[in-house]
Amino acid sequence: MTLEDARRLDAADPLRDYRERFDLPEGVVYLDGNSLGALPKDTPARLEQVVRGEWGNGLIRSWNDADWITLPQRVGAKIAPLIGAEADEVIVCDSVSVNLFKLIGAALNMRPGRKVILSEPGNFPTDLYMIAGLEAQGLAERRLAAPGDLEAALDGDVALLMLTHVHYKAGRTHDMVRLTRAAQDAGALVLWDLSHSGGAVPVDLAACNADFAVGCGYKYLNGGPGAPAYAYVAKRHHAALSQPLTGWMGHAAPFAFTDDYAPAPGASRLLAGTPGILGIAALEVGVDLIAEIGINRLAAKSRALSEFFRKCAAEKLPDLELVSPLDPLARGSQLSFRHTQANAICQALIARGIIGDFRDPDILRFGFAPAYVSFEDVFLAAEGLADIISTRAWDKPEFQQRAAVT
Amino acid sequence: MTLEDARRLDAADPLRDYRERFDLPEGVVYLDGNSLGALPKDTPARLEQVVRGEWGNGLIRSWNDADWITLPQRVGAKIAPLIGAEADEVIVCDSVSVNLFKLIGAALNMRPGRKVILSEPGNFPTDLYMIAGLEAQGLAERRLAAPGDLEAALDGDVALLMLTHVHYKAGRTHDMVRLTRAAQDAGALVLWDLSHSGGAVPVDLAACNADFAVGCGYKYLNGGPGAPAYAYVAKRHHAALSQPLTGWMGHAAPFAFTDDYAPAPGASRLLAGTPGILGIAALEVGVDLIAEIGINRLAAKSRALSEFFRKCAAEKLPDLELVSPLDPLARGSQLSFRHTQANAICQALIARGIIGDFRDPDILRFGFAPAYVSFEDVFLAAEGLADIISTRAWDKPEFQQRAAVT
Repeated sequence: MTLEDARRLDAADPLRDYRERFDLPEGVVYLDGNSLGALPKDTPARLEQVVRGEWGNGLIRSWNDADWITLPQRVGAKIAPLIGAEADEVIVCDSVSVNLFKLIGAALNMRPGRKVILSEPGNFPTDLYMIAGLEAQGLAERRLAAPGDLEAALDGDVALLMLTHVHYKAGRTHDMVRLTRAAQDAGALVLWDLSHSGGAVPVDLAACNADFAVGCGYKYLNGGPGAPAYAYVAKRHHAALSQPLTGWMGHAAPFAFTDDYAPAPGASRLLAGTPGILGIAALEVGVDLIAEIGINRLAAKSRALSEFFRKCAAEKLPDLELVSPLDPLARGSQLSFRHTQANAICQALIARGIIGDFRDPDILRFGFAPAYVSFEDVFLAAEGLADIISTRAWDKPEFQQRAAVT
Repeated sequence: MTLEDARRLDAADPLRDYRERFDLPEGVVYLDGNSLGALPKDTPARLEQVVRGEWGNGLIRSWNDADWITLPQRVGAKIAPLIGAEADEVIVCDSVSVNLFKLIGAALNMRPGRKVILSEPGNFPTDLYMIAGLEAQGLAERRLAAPGDLEAALDGDVALLMLTHVHYKAGRTHDMVRLTRAAQDAGALVLWDLSHSGGAVPVDLAACNADFAVGCGYKYLNGGPGAPAYAYVAKRHHAALSQPLTGWMGHAAPFAFTDDYAPAPGASRLLAGTPGILGIAALEVGVDLIAEIGINRLAAKSRALSEFFRKCAAEKLPDLELVSPLDPLARGSQLSFRHTQANAICQALIARGIIGDFRDPDILRFGFAPAYVSFEDVFLAAEGLADIISTRAWDKPEFQQRAAVT
């Protein structure tokens, strides 16, 4: 694999022009879009319009005149086709964590007599942590089973199977169709966390008959740091949906200012407080761009990029342990490797302008955001990684310290 | 009261230069800063820096390099002196609604055997609604008592007294010292909603020995539409605090990625998901400006403005019913009036560039954000109101329709 190979692949890439739609810093190879997506070039102007025009000039009138009030539903409807959902099954609101709480609560309400939330050890921490508060309240009971044991762990106590489609660390995917069916056969509901899928990996919530899902706005959807998240509720549950965060924006008539709660129709009842307009407006720009490219083209390029990286790395670093599946169809838009010096290697790469990330204790992770990562990026990153490992360039005191956020 | 009186008051106003720090549209009299605060002139440049510099150029590195990770605590610490709190007792996160849920849940955890959440009928809807989800889960029981009956309603079943300091509709205040003591004497905890106080009305959480508080970022703190909210926990509760939304950002070591939840120290455990950086960064600009002016000067001007409006209105419209207390010390930074045509009058005012708001079914509400409202604004608004009512200018078909958001 050579730089020329990479450039040939870039020249033939049908998505090559989309890189210009992002504002990427000079001299940086960015393989961490799975943690924070890059800035779309249209975002600053859109935010300027929202801030100066809609807020500064329109003031309170913009809730009506700029239609802020339906922004959560509008952006949710744009995310829907990326995950195999219908427009009114998806809404943008709060964070992934808060949305997990709502939907775990909804599942417990729908399965009285069952308290177990089944997940896997090593799932993304917040998914597991969000069960803890409900456990302390006596409402839920956490059960963890390794991927191969999940189906055996589905008994009559399980209210909800809650899994992340693409594992944040290993990058492996779950079989959504099979696990959803197994859980539903056992009388449980299913919640899929699409944080590491949506916008890069094909998901078909309708085809797998999912009950609930959540996903992240700041990774492959390029919504900006801490962007609002999204939540999905299958239409068949809309009428009965009852979730615990019963705020005024999820009320059937918020501006009637009545004392008693009555839920808004469908997924809109997932809203709690006043939606953060700046955050959702920025997210909309990223979603528009990803939706314009389309999930099938993104997924095809994602697989080609990760395969190219894998082959480059295998050629230069035959001993480096790959943690992610070899089969590109069995993994998300990332590759993870194990190395005892993962943190120092990650720091050394960043010092050279090659940004991946480190996941405690020994994982080096590279994400391939297909909308803007090039094959040349991938080649340069693999080359830098090989050089740092083979020359032990990581072995400097300044690369040993652990950053506050990794 | 004449325009000259108003201009004399403006000339003598020690805060008169602060109006220039806000980007107010020409020809608009804005008396709705109690619903959505105006845009500080520094906000667009700060957001541009966060978006292009910290996100676009810094990318994932900005969690460390721009110290995004401590932004919720930093901005909370700046809000603290406005509400009589210590720096580490306040944190910025989520929405008022979500923070209410956390703190109601925390109170229930701290008062096992007690389930009653006591509030008043007609409290701001989301405060009452947030009890509904917990009621459906069997964890809470809502009890409402009119202000004069609250103390009698405090029995051994009450876990939490939850009230809004300044009533959103009437503008009247509660006596925080007396009610906090009464509730604590009955063994209950107290949660104050400061949404209509913080940044305009003096609050001393320490002096009244409050347990918990929440407040809004988008009203008198000028954080922008749907800005993140803040939450307060008295230091004496920090060690034992246990709230239900146990997300990864409230974990003691989020980047250790362990399976089991362990709370971060103090108020930081109120964090759930990844904080929305754009929203908090915008809020910080508004908070900086309000903190620079200081709550005592703001409160003094607020009272002078509302008294001036009240006297102008009383002179021109002696029959208009004032809903807010006559005593400026007994009300917040707003005045509310009752009129059967309140909605149409509000629409007619807006058509003339005088923006107050309408609260269902018959309330006309005017807010006096002391950082940027002038006495001339107040005079013009009272004059416009008097003209619209006395000439029945509201009686046109286009003013009869109800806006989606009021």
